[in-house]
Amino acid sequence: MTGNFLKRNASFFMLMSFLMIGLPMHAQAPTELNIMPLPAKVQRGTGALKIDANFTLAFAGFHDARLDRAGQRFLTQLHRETGFVLANAAGDAGKATLLVTTDHDSKPIQELGEEESYTLEITATGAKLNAPTTLGTLRGLQTFLQLVSITPDGFSVPAVTIQDQPRFPWRGLMIDASRHFMPLAVIKRNLDGMEAVKLNVFHWHLSDNQGFRVESRKFPKLHSAGSDGLFYTQDEVRDVIAYARDRGIRVVPEFDMPGHSTAWFAGHPELASGSGPYQIERKWGVFDPAMDPTKDATYKFLNEFIGEMTKLFPDQYFHIGGDEVNGKEWDANPKIQEFMKAHGIKNNVELQAYFSQRVQELVVKHGKTTVGWDEVLIPGVPKTVVIQSWRGADSLAAAAKDGYRGILSNGYYIDLGWSAARHYAVDPMGGAAANLSPEEKQRILGGEATMWSEFVNSENVDSRIWPRTAAIAERFWSPQNTTDVDSMYRRMNAESERLEWLGLTHRTYQRQMVQRMAGPAPVEQTDALLVLVRGLEPVKDYSREALATEEPTSRTPLVRVVDAVNPESEASRRFSDEVDQFLASSCKDQAKAAALRAQLAQWARNDSDVQALAQRSSLVREATPASAAFSQSAELALTALDRINQGLPLPDDLKKQQIDALNAFEQQAHKSQLTIPARAAFQKLIEAAGNGGACTTAK
Amino acid sequence: MTGNFLKRNASFFMLMSFLMIGLPMHAQAPTELNIMPLPAKVQRGTGALKIDANFTLAFAGFHDARLDRAGQRFLTQLHRETGFVLANAAGDAGKATLLVTTDHDSKPIQELGEEESYTLEITATGAKLNAPTTLGTLRGLQTFLQLVSITPDGFSVPAVTIQDQPRFPWRGLMIDASRHFMPLAVIKRNLDGMEAVKLNVFHWHLSDNQGFRVESRKFPKLHSAGSDGLFYTQDEVRDVIAYARDRGIRVVPEFDMPGHSTAWFAGHPELASGSGPYQIERKWGVFDPAMDPTKDATYKFLNEFIGEMTKLFPDQYFHIGGDEVNGKEWDANPKIQEFMKAHGIKNNVELQAYFSQRVQELVVKHGKTTVGWDEVLIPGVPKTVVIQSWRGADSLAAAAKDGYRGILSNGYYIDLGWSAARHYAVDPMGGAAANLSPEEKQRILGGEATMWSEFVNSENVDSRIWPRTAAIAERFWSPQNTTDVDSMYRRMNAESERLEWLGLTHRTYQRQMVQRMAGPAPVEQTDALLVLVRGLEPVKDYSREALATEEPTSRTPLVRVVDAVNPESEASRRFSDEVDQFLASSCKDQAKAAALRAQLAQWARNDSDVQALAQRSSLVREATPASAAFSQSAELALTALDRINQGLPLPDDLKKQQIDALNAFEQQAHKSQLTIPARAAFQKLIEAAGNGGACTTAK
Repeated sequence: MTGNFLKRNASFFMLMSFLMIGLPMHAQAPTELNIMPLPAKVQRGTGALKIDANFTLAFAGFHDARLDRAGQRFLTQLHRETGFVLANAAGDAGKATLLVTTDHDSKPIQELGEEESYTLEITATGAKLNAPTTLGTLRGLQTFLQLVSITPDGFSVPAVTIQDQPRFPWRGLMIDASRHFMPLAVIKRNLDGMEAVKLNVFHWHLSDNQGFRVESRKFPKLHSAGSDGLFYTQDEVRDVIAYARDRGIRVVPEFDMPGHSTAWFAGHPELASGSGPYQIERKWGVFDPAMDPTKDATYKFLNEFIGEMTKLFPDQYFHIGGDEVNGKEWDANPKIQEFMKAHGIKNNVELQAYFSQRVQELVVKHGKTTVGWDEVLIPGVPKTVVIQSWRGADSLAAAAKDGYRGILSNGYYIDLGWSAARHYAVDPMGGAAANLSPEEKQRILGGEATMWSEFVNSENVDSRIWPRTAAIAERFWSPQNTTDVDSMYRRMNAESERLEWLGLTHRTYQRQMVQRMAGPAPVEQTDALLVLVRGLEPVKDYSREALATEEPTSRTPLVRVVDAVNPESEASRRFSDEVDQFLASSCKDQAKAAALRAQLAQWARNDSDVQALAQRSSLVREATPASAAFSQSAELALTALDRINQGLPLPDDLKKQQIDALNAFEQQAHKSQLTIPARAAFQKLIEAAGNGGACTTAK
Repeated sequence: MTGNFLKRNASFFMLMSFLMIGLPMHAQAPTELNIMPLPAKVQRGTGALKIDANFTLAFAGFHDARLDRAGQRFLTQLHRETGFVLANAAGDAGKATLLVTTDHDSKPIQELGEEESYTLEITATGAKLNAPTTLGTLRGLQTFLQLVSITPDGFSVPAVTIQDQPRFPWRGLMIDASRHFMPLAVIKRNLDGMEAVKLNVFHWHLSDNQGFRVESRKFPKLHSAGSDGLFYTQDEVRDVIAYARDRGIRVVPEFDMPGHSTAWFAGHPELASGSGPYQIERKWGVFDPAMDPTKDATYKFLNEFIGEMTKLFPDQYFHIGGDEVNGKEWDANPKIQEFMKAHGIKNNVELQAYFSQRVQELVVKHGKTTVGWDEVLIPGVPKTVVIQSWRGADSLAAAAKDGYRGILSNGYYIDLGWSAARHYAVDPMGGAAANLSPEEKQRILGGEATMWSEFVNSENVDSRIWPRTAAIAERFWSPQNTTDVDSMYRRMNAESERLEWLGLTHRTYQRQMVQRMAGPAPVEQTDALLVLVRGLEPVKDYSREALATEEPTSRTPLVRVVDAVNPESEASRRFSDEVDQFLASSCKDQAKAAALRAQLAQWARNDSDVQALAQRSSLVREATPASAAFSQSAELALTALDRINQGLPLPDDLKKQQIDALNAFEQQAHKSQLTIPARAAFQKLIEAAGNGGACTTAK
């Protein structure tokens, strides 16, 4: 039947055949490789290695079960990226498409500063990955996976020679599993993400005021009374450690003390400096409860506890927290005051120093090295202690000058809603560190992105970590001069797509959250809510708490528009870039003008559907001030664009009025704890349209 | 600072305050409840029961660990739907928001026809669920979850009284885990989906030519040689059975014989009628290998095998397949021909009857009841055998007349790409069954949706099962007169969103497949591919194989546009509905006209971005004929719409030419194994625009 039809319609098909063959189908050479983090050294070759169902992987040199699992994981991921059903068995080494040669195993317990280098040579006929240790092999396999891409001729990997090693030995991600518990699946998929971008330290924030999250067999009341039943069993901890080791990732546990410790006291009030009783804290902030640093019983307890936990966590480093003690319980406790007098301790800072010193001795006694936040750095602390700086690069540089090793987290607080570019611009060797001696610089070990979890749960935590942490990972891995922001965004977005194949939900969560808010609404209303959510961002830094009308707690549902928006709106970022390009063309680029107009028109008309939806949903209604502000702002920018096009300059008074309006709209969005990230771009258009503005003068 | 700003800008805020308070915020009473399947009896009450963080659930009457787990699952799902952190512990029965009273446990091994009824009474102050057995409780909990929705006043459940029970006792979903292996996670999330829509039989197609998927401890070569290592261990099978039991779902295993059995022969060639050697089949279709029905050794083997499997699978029913034997191996085997002569067996149909009879006796010997496809129904087969009809309702009705019980699958083959409406229109009591006596009708037990897996894998299988299977589930559960298709689609779409919270990937897979095809392309090109994928459907029935240029196998990557499109395009269905509404308004509804124009314009211009993307991706290039055809078709409809608007009738010759063109475009789409589902709607617009058409006469 199909055949007859074709014959009958032959002339018609001839007429339209140009549609199918009229377009040239040759390959476009990609201008950059979508690798993140960028390798230390890349040299492009000629041609590409085809990836198809015949792809095989073989190991030579050192070989063990961990490498087998890495190979299996690699093939699974390659299958997901391409759809090819690949042979599970390692192929014949001589004929393998990718031959992986590892010289030696890495250390049985992964150490700080272990060799992670590798070389990867890809030609049109095959690929070779060579690494001194298993860690380098793991890194190189990820680079290979990132190089796989669809082309006009199917999937392939470009010919390239890569020599790569990390800039810093400590490249971490901290996840706070205390404020909101993070189920095992969340931890594991984020370890997968870490492996993909070559991070090598998972810092597990396991206790805080709001929860004690690990099973203690010595002191079971710690987790039973301190966790609402949401904790990791020791078997689960071992499972995570093994999972991380397979991926070349160390696991550093943190038990925060003497402050940030209310959850300990729910089961063990005798550790506290106040009279109790204590229960798990449900609110956010810095609270009064703190361990009693004057009682021997405290150290006896901690000695046993640290003994148990240092056995459970094999890593050499053990994080004791030490941040943010407000001292109120100490001030109010007469026995503590007596103790201070008797021992010549002049103030709470000295008292905390005394505590830190004793705990640090316990850690050493159990064979480990202490890590603590800035506050643990007080006179007399041994030089072995590693300082994690939340205060900043200068504080870190000062520590390095004093002989302490440190890692930077200030600037990498991914809970604050900053753009990837802003994190990317922070360098552990920046600020005062730039002036350190080479020996002092050695003491700056790297950095850590920190995912504090006041406002994230298992549903949206991935979206707060990814993809921005890939840019931070590049800062820690790649040469210092890797600073091209445009390139970073292109590669980060490509990596973001790829991370989805690992099961991360940083992109898919949004649609579901929008659906929850919208309910079974008309599709155009749900779509409008999606446009809103994709155009806005949460307010930055700590303003969410400041702007809240009701004090948020750990029981507050995270189901609002502010929970669904990304920390960085890709739509707004792209729009802002296009505004810059349009202005750079002296407003002559008509294609750009059309693209800007289409986006602005969508945003400007978007509010009407959102308002309709708000009549069905309290969750949407709460965000209507922001929705109205967003559409009104876009409308102003649209009018400016029209004026630019018509060569009709915006009078000064109108210009000022409109910029004031933009600011007012921004404040209005804050009512929903939201911000309008394209506002600066809107303002640029208004200014360009103004009398004597960039575009009115150009016209 | 915010305060000062507000004061300075007070007049500005007054000006725009209408945006925030100008719209009335009252509730709209929903016109229908988003329940699927619709209950037998629903009576609406007044008001609604608020759902918030204080929600509690309590059990009264019969109570066991299975109910506790059901309660836990219910609370988890309610948490996902609303975000509220709910108390894990069952609350005080007297004060519970939802009090669940179960009279008795259901049978230790779930039986066909067990009581599943329940009543659910919801008022503004509380809810009561009552059920004679645990099965009814499970069903009622799902109804409650479906009733939860976002409103202007937060989440709530409308006041309602529901009395509900199923129409048919056998409401199944078959998943073919042989042609493409389906990992445990896929099975489990689909069992979750089944529970949500009250299906109660999981028919697990475990062996076929392409794979033997269950561990046999008696005959380990069955799975070791017959599965490429992709099989379920017996522990995993027990895990699935327990998981299903928790959800009120029976698990009926199928081992297809004597045909569809090549994978058995990879390890046990002595069972076959040919000389072998055999290996797992990689292609699709009906193949020659069949068991040798003449050797006693065959039955000795099957006796032991059935003995093992009937112990592993506790359900009373055991499916022996029995379909599609082509008889070629039997014809070619002289010993078999001799046997037939010696025993007076005249042809292969009789030979298969002989085999079925003996296997059926083995099943009975092991205490089970046989289920088989139509072919097992031959003269002399005991009346206990249950017939699963792939041939159709008439065949089923004939069986019922003969005294056999049966279930209908013809009409519910969800691998064929039919619309939900088409499946929904099929009734197990339709056709000849409508004329059966009441007693005969009793023998029609229900039906099963069948997910054959030639062209699905773990990545897209959910999208082939859901949401359409929810409509089929309604056919099996709800009263026969539940036939409003518009209502079905509205409720099915609402349920589709809800199913996502169970972890089903039927919506999220598409974006990822599109991303794989697009690679890191400009966003407008990726979006265009998404528009294409959402506008088209796979060719229907078995035409995918017929249209393939290269014979598909089990190793063919399922990564093409045809794998990414949904069986039913929601965008096209909505568009077609709107065309009908527009035409019903005698083309006077200008809002509809504008909506149609917007959609057509998007589709018409879509191809240019897809063509650009095709130059980067071989996977996209392959679909360019369909993309061009789709945009060209939309362009024709757009022109017709313009003529309607301008009152400019389309001359007859042009009309004919355009309809011919639509047909040709459809054929062109078939080259990519795709179809243009909006084609009929496009044609309606062209016909309406034609001389004397609905809209030209109306104008």
